[in-house]
Amino acid sequence: MAVIRGRQFFQNPGPTNIPDRILRAMNRPAVDFVQTDFRAVVDECVEGLKYALKTEGTIVVYTASGHGAWEGALVNTLSPGDRVLVCDSGYFALHWAAMAKAHGVEAEMLPGDWRKGVDPAAVEARLRADAARDIHAVLLVHNETSTGVANRAADIRRAIDAAGHPALYMIDTISSLMSFDFRMDEWGVDVAVGGSQKGLMLPAGMSFNGISGKALAATQSARCARSYWDWRNLLSDGRQTGFSGTAAVHLWFGMQEAVRMIREEGTEAIFARHHRLAEAVRRAIAAWSVGGGPELYASDPRVFSDSVSAVLMPEGHDAEAVRRICLNRFNVSIGGGLGTLSGRVFRIGHLGDLNEPMILGTIASVEAALRAARVPHGQGGTAAAIAYLADTPQPGVETAP
Amino acid sequence: MAVIRGRQFFQNPGPTNIPDRILRAMNRPAVDFVQTDFRAVVDECVEGLKYALKTEGTIVVYTASGHGAWEGALVNTLSPGDRVLVCDSGYFALHWAAMAKAHGVEAEMLPGDWRKGVDPAAVEARLRADAARDIHAVLLVHNETSTGVANRAADIRRAIDAAGHPALYMIDTISSLMSFDFRMDEWGVDVAVGGSQKGLMLPAGMSFNGISGKALAATQSARCARSYWDWRNLLSDGRQTGFSGTAAVHLWFGMQEAVRMIREEGTEAIFARHHRLAEAVRRAIAAWSVGGGPELYASDPRVFSDSVSAVLMPEGHDAEAVRRICLNRFNVSIGGGLGTLSGRVFRIGHLGDLNEPMILGTIASVEAALRAARVPHGQGGTAAAIAYLADTPQPGVETAP
Amino acid sequence: MAVIRGRQFFQNPGPTNIPDRILRAMNRPAVDFVQTDFRAVVDECVEGLKYALKTEGTIVVYTASGHGAWEGALVNTLSPGDRVLVCDSGYFALHWAAMAKAHGVEAEMLPGDWRKGVDPAAVEARLRADAARDIHAVLLVHNETSTGVANRAADIRRAIDAAGHPALYMIDTISSLMSFDFRMDEWGVDVAVGGSQKGLMLPAGMSFNGISGKALAATQSARCARSYWDWRNLLSDGRQTGFSGTAAVHLWFGMQEAVRMIREEGTEAIFARHHRLAEAVRRAIAAWSVGGGPELYASDPRVFSDSVSAVLMPEGHDAEAVRRICLNRFNVSIGGGLGTLSGRVFRIGHLGDLNEPMILGTIASVEAALRAARVPHGQGGTAAAIAYLADTPQPGVETAP
Amino acid sequence: MAVIRGRQFFQNPGPTNIPDRILRAMNRPAVDFVQTDFRAVVDECVEGLKYALKTEGTIVVYTASGHGAWEGALVNTLSPGDRVLVCDSGYFALHWAAMAKAHGVEAEMLPGDWRKGVDPAAVEARLRADAARDIHAVLLVHNETSTGVANRAADIRRAIDAAGHPALYMIDTISSLMSFDFRMDEWGVDVAVGGSQKGLMLPAGMSFNGISGKALAATQSARCARSYWDWRNLLSDGRQTGFSGTAAVHLWFGMQEAVRMIREEGTEAIFARHHRLAEAVRRAIAAWSVGGGPELYASDPRVFSDSVSAVLMPEGHDAEAVRRICLNRFNVSIGGGLGTLSGRVFRIGHLGDLNEPMILGTIASVEAALRAARVPHGQGGTAAAIAYLADTPQPGVETAP
Repeated sequence: MAVIRGRQFFQNPGPTNIPDRILRAMNRPAVDFVQTDFRAVVDECVEGLKYALKTEGTIVVYTASGHGAWEGALVNTLSPGDRVLVCDSGYFALHWAAMAKAHGVEAEMLPGDWRKGVDPAAVEARLRADAARDIHAVLLVHNETSTGVANRAADIRRAIDAAGHPALYMIDTISSLMSFDFRMDEWGVDVAVGGSQKGLMLPAGMSFNGISGKALAATQSARCARSYWDWRNLLSDGRQTGFSGTAAVHLWFGMQEAVRMIREEGTEAIFARHHRLAEAVRRAIAAWSVGGGPELYASDPRVFSDSVSAVLMPEGHDAEAVRRICLNRFNVSIGGGLGTLSGRVFRIGHLGDLNEPMILGTIASVEAALRAARVPHGQGGTAAAIAYLADTPQPGVETAP
Repeated sequence: MAVIRGRQFFQNPGPTNIPDRILRAMNRPAVDFVQTDFRAVVDECVEGLKYALKTEGTIVVYTASGHGAWEGALVNTLSPGDRVLVCDSGYFALHWAAMAKAHGVEAEMLPGDWRKGVDPAAVEARLRADAARDIHAVLLVHNETSTGVANRAADIRRAIDAAGHPALYMIDTISSLMSFDFRMDEWGVDVAVGGSQKGLMLPAGMSFNGISGKALAATQSARCARSYWDWRNLLSDGRQTGFSGTAAVHLWFGMQEAVRMIREEGTEAIFARHHRLAEAVRRAIAAWSVGGGPELYASDPRVFSDSVSAVLMPEGHDAEAVRRICLNRFNVSIGGGLGTLSGRVFRIGHLGDLNEPMILGTIASVEAALRAARVPHGQGGTAAAIAYLADTPQPGVETAP
Repeated sequence: MAVIRGRQFFQNPGPTNIPDRILRAMNRPAVDFVQTDFRAVVDECVEGLKYALKTEGTIVVYTASGHGAWEGALVNTLSPGDRVLVCDSGYFALHWAAMAKAHGVEAEMLPGDWRKGVDPAAVEARLRADAARDIHAVLLVHNETSTGVANRAADIRRAIDAAGHPALYMIDTISSLMSFDFRMDEWGVDVAVGGSQKGLMLPAGMSFNGISGKALAATQSARCARSYWDWRNLLSDGRQTGFSGTAAVHLWFGMQEAVRMIREEGTEAIFARHHRLAEAVRRAIAAWSVGGGPELYASDPRVFSDSVSAVLMPEGHDAEAVRRICLNRFNVSIGGGLGTLSGRVFRIGHLGDLNEPMILGTIASVEAALRAARVPHGQGGTAAAIAYLADTPQPGVETAP
Repeated sequence: MAVIRGRQFFQNPGPTNIPDRILRAMNRPAVDFVQTDFRAVVDECVEGLKYALKTEGTIVVYTASGHGAWEGALVNTLSPGDRVLVCDSGYFALHWAAMAKAHGVEAEMLPGDWRKGVDPAAVEARLRADAARDIHAVLLVHNETSTGVANRAADIRRAIDAAGHPALYMIDTISSLMSFDFRMDEWGVDVAVGGSQKGLMLPAGMSFNGISGKALAATQSARCARSYWDWRNLLSDGRQTGFSGTAAVHLWFGMQEAVRMIREEGTEAIFARHHRLAEAVRRAIAAWSVGGGPELYASDPRVFSDSVSAVLMPEGHDAEAVRRICLNRFNVSIGGGLGTLSGRVFRIGHLGDLNEPMILGTIASVEAALRAARVPHGQGGTAAAIAYLADTPQPGVETAP
């Protein structure tokens, strides 16, 4: 094998690129986490997560991957035998449902079209049909990382309200948070599930729940067995003071730096940046798709995701071949298809600590890989992205030279 | 407040000092953990943990603190209503028992003398009395971090065998592993619980189970609800291939470096080093105790811990005052008393990446703090430690100049 | 100002991108440089530099920027009043000459065409005319970083030989070493001048001389005052043992890692990679130049530089405007024109730790900046680079998917 | 060899321990040093150095070891044939004089007693005798790192004034700056020479001159050849704008952090800390010296150095044996004797980023090494240091628990 030089372009839809500021903040000795001054680090992180989630609710942070926060959301609010409605949007929705089942919860899948995203009307219809109010919670993956579809979380809230249904509304924001808009309080979300390794730009290993007052109340009657994830062990007076064992202080220091960076840039500027870079990717894909080339998997502009684009290969062409060329010849790491989409799509992550040349280098490399793999594709993809980025002003940056 | 200069002496009994080699190994970009070359990192870590645990059994690593591995041990092998015998040795034994109860397991405490450690004869007697073979598992904290007592795990195995009892034997090795001898297979341990932040010299955030064949079989019938910790999701053909979500690759890279360092030094040399440094601390404490000064909490030489020494204050003197002087005047962080021992003991951790001057600087600073706090104490503690270390050869190091 | 996110594309012609491996090697405590084990670091670096310079000569490393090694070359071999012939190739040649003058050396400029590079025939003619053998040394900047012209060092050696002239041949390899071919011994170079911050991928702060036997002999009669740079203070038995004060050990540790990386990749693979990436840049520039757009400053393909391309703006357009857009809108740092070329050229560095997506991201961003700055330019520059890179095999990498 | 564990105690008198904050500040990508925002880094460093030197004069920073700043001081102010009076205080004074001679300067040594330091009266006498005002400069090493003698720089200024002599006063502050008091302007120092790797807590590789108006004027007539060190190339309007080649930006970023840390602690608190730790070392040495044991080399309390203590061995005992035990058995690195003091003294550095446990660990380890090496020595050295530190209040720290 040739020695690979230069920095890997890490364009998976998560984990994402970790800024040097965060790596530096984590490159430090251990500290005694019961000391007073570490308390301040925790508080700053919690306040930062409330800013990110747009909530005045309660935050609980786990030493765990995002799956841990999935489990925390379930076991703290539900009892064995409870029914939840899981909006089927793809691979991650299916897995969250499987986890619920492992805890004895009845997970009912609401069918949907993966390319169009969850249909709010279908949610409303199903909830209206639930006269017995048997459904305890509606589970939604905000951004399906496996398909690049951004579900219409606000519309689904409206659907729940229209049905007048009291179910808890739980949303997995893992790959949407800090990439595009999420509003926990405004959208009446009861439990938000987030992870460190996407828009928060941290290594994996930390995840969290945002918790509404209604969800906090529900934990009193919930009978799922729990200890590690138990909100009651982690909170005192609505504030996180426990860690289920030794606190993973390095991740907290990283989180502290992350929330500082997020506040410096500001959520709206972050979303604008993600949208701009995502749109550049979509312009390139649109050009490639001409004449039957690879096309965007998401088929409805209302659900185009600003954090990841899944690209559907033309019939007879293998997405993995494109990925391998990207990785082996150009040191560009992109995502493959998950589950039933394996080999049929590749996925370009465009979330986290990214800028124009990183995205352009990625697009150009994918274009080179399509050419090298002899995948038929329309010309001018990268050129379209260049033109879009040159012509689109960035907030706060003078466009004139 | 004065600005504190110089490196903090971090002499808590965990987390412990992280070697620069490990920090450097973790100071890196994210990688795609499904790539082949990350597979090799996982395998190297797993093999290293088998070497450390002295087992040919199965290893499962969690993205979690040590409490996660506690929970993993319980929910994978037990069912609600099962009875376990928890050997009471202090704070951590009590908490592990509480966790079992949260999962519906009957946790029976075997009473004991915290200063002498768990009595194997008492274990044998209790198991003999269990004619119905109602006890599914015996739970032991190998090294009680809260008391500095190293329980006699091998003798307790013999006690279980003498009683002819089929209970699973589960041991928390969190603060013993890689500090003093632990032999999973030889001692017939069914589930070992370990964490990253002690003898493995890593940040907190990773924990693991060593699993015997008997424990692996038990998971088939265990009915505790589980998903995140479920060994079945993490293993394929007895080998870890799953991670319950995104792998925390930075900790894996750190673990890879840690197991390399451990193999380079070798388990017996590591234990000899810990014993030498621990004995230096004990020599100092013995000198201080003369005339009614602070004394070692552990009262039986068979259970002196080579990873942590708890020091019991003379009546009427506050351990926290000594700790605060250590921290505020000398930038030396030592542990305080936990639970009922709060204010009555302070704890000097002497585990992990330590050497003679670090221990001597710690002992001397504690001696200065005793003096500054006007705690009556015998003289010559540090001098005794110096003499011991000067006179005790180190394996592999020429003693002659 | 907008907050800038994502990694800066650092495409200056030096300093260059520092690989994480090197940063990690430098992120360490100080060591006592007189210890035996540091000796091994020095020796490994010196052997690595001999490999890089392709010499069996003597190496002297300075704690200094490249200008220090310029001065070292002069003061160790020359006396006040000596004459040197400096081949005029641009900004850096002029500055090296000025330095010689500061030491009382007569620096005669050999005129030349900056866009075509130094003419070997002119060198030969001038040396033939020097019947009195008054010229003590010929000074050449191998790669003029200011113009992107790679002078024909081997041909100039042949010119000196053809003239039968005994002058020392001194070459500044600062921006050529480890980017394209340099052969100290084969080309009869007497003093090579190198720096840490270009092809060696290190921070600035370390520079060195490669020294032939003839140059080493010349130092005996050289009368320029010297102490810090004095080879006699730094060498014992032809081996570096001195450092002119405290050794800058962090740079030595970085250099150790750099020479390991260089040996792993191999000089010829390094040159092939640089050529491939440079050619991609030139393909883009060629496309832009159509119809009177920006064009490559170097006008003779024999002197195209594989480490930097200077791009000459069309009349009436300011290179600095393009640079500012690259930096402020896209976080891409490229070089500006130096001295008389200020505002007339911008320079794309393509040397050091680079790969395809980094170069493609750079080219695409420059193309976007040309568009944003309304600089007339031919279309399809990035597309040409993509096609070239897709179609050009990389040694050791399978082209087929 | 045994594997060495734990952090090395680095108690050389320089280089010194580098705080993590500084290592983190340096662990970053290269930047374009001609950018505006790097300008601010330079300015902050220069202002910080003025604060440290206590001067309103001019600062010039070199990419070089401290020897470079020695050379800069000489060649910018003197001409070949000029006479300088070098106050002989040991190894470094001799070497600075040798450097002056290499540049054609007449370096006259003023004899002195190395253990008592330079005698101001002798300076005055020699200057009074210089009726022709032939002496252009007086050169003093403020703190002789080789002997642990802190020369009486203010008294020597008074001696020069008493003689009414116009000589420039040049002081090497390399191992005194930021360890104990130095006042450039108040003491009428014309050129101060400083380095990065001692009290400034940085890696080696950066050095500097503080320059008085008188020295700046002298550079106009100075005829020593110079280019790399030439103040005229580095300054514009009395402000550093040049770097003699590519700026070593990593050291500048480190310096920026260092001067921030220095301002946070404050010069007087820094000096008090150094004095306290130095005094602890001296208390230990005094105890060891009882009965003919090793004693402090400095013999006059007025010149005890707060940055380094040299310890003179009893007749017939080898200092190197003690050093080797410290290093090989305890991983404590201390300094050896230089030049004629080789084997006769060892040196404990107590400057830079140090605190009480670091010093106590060092003292205790040296005491253990004396014991292991069977060097006769008085007992209770470490105990004396402990008592001193326990009983001595630290400014800004509450002594009561």
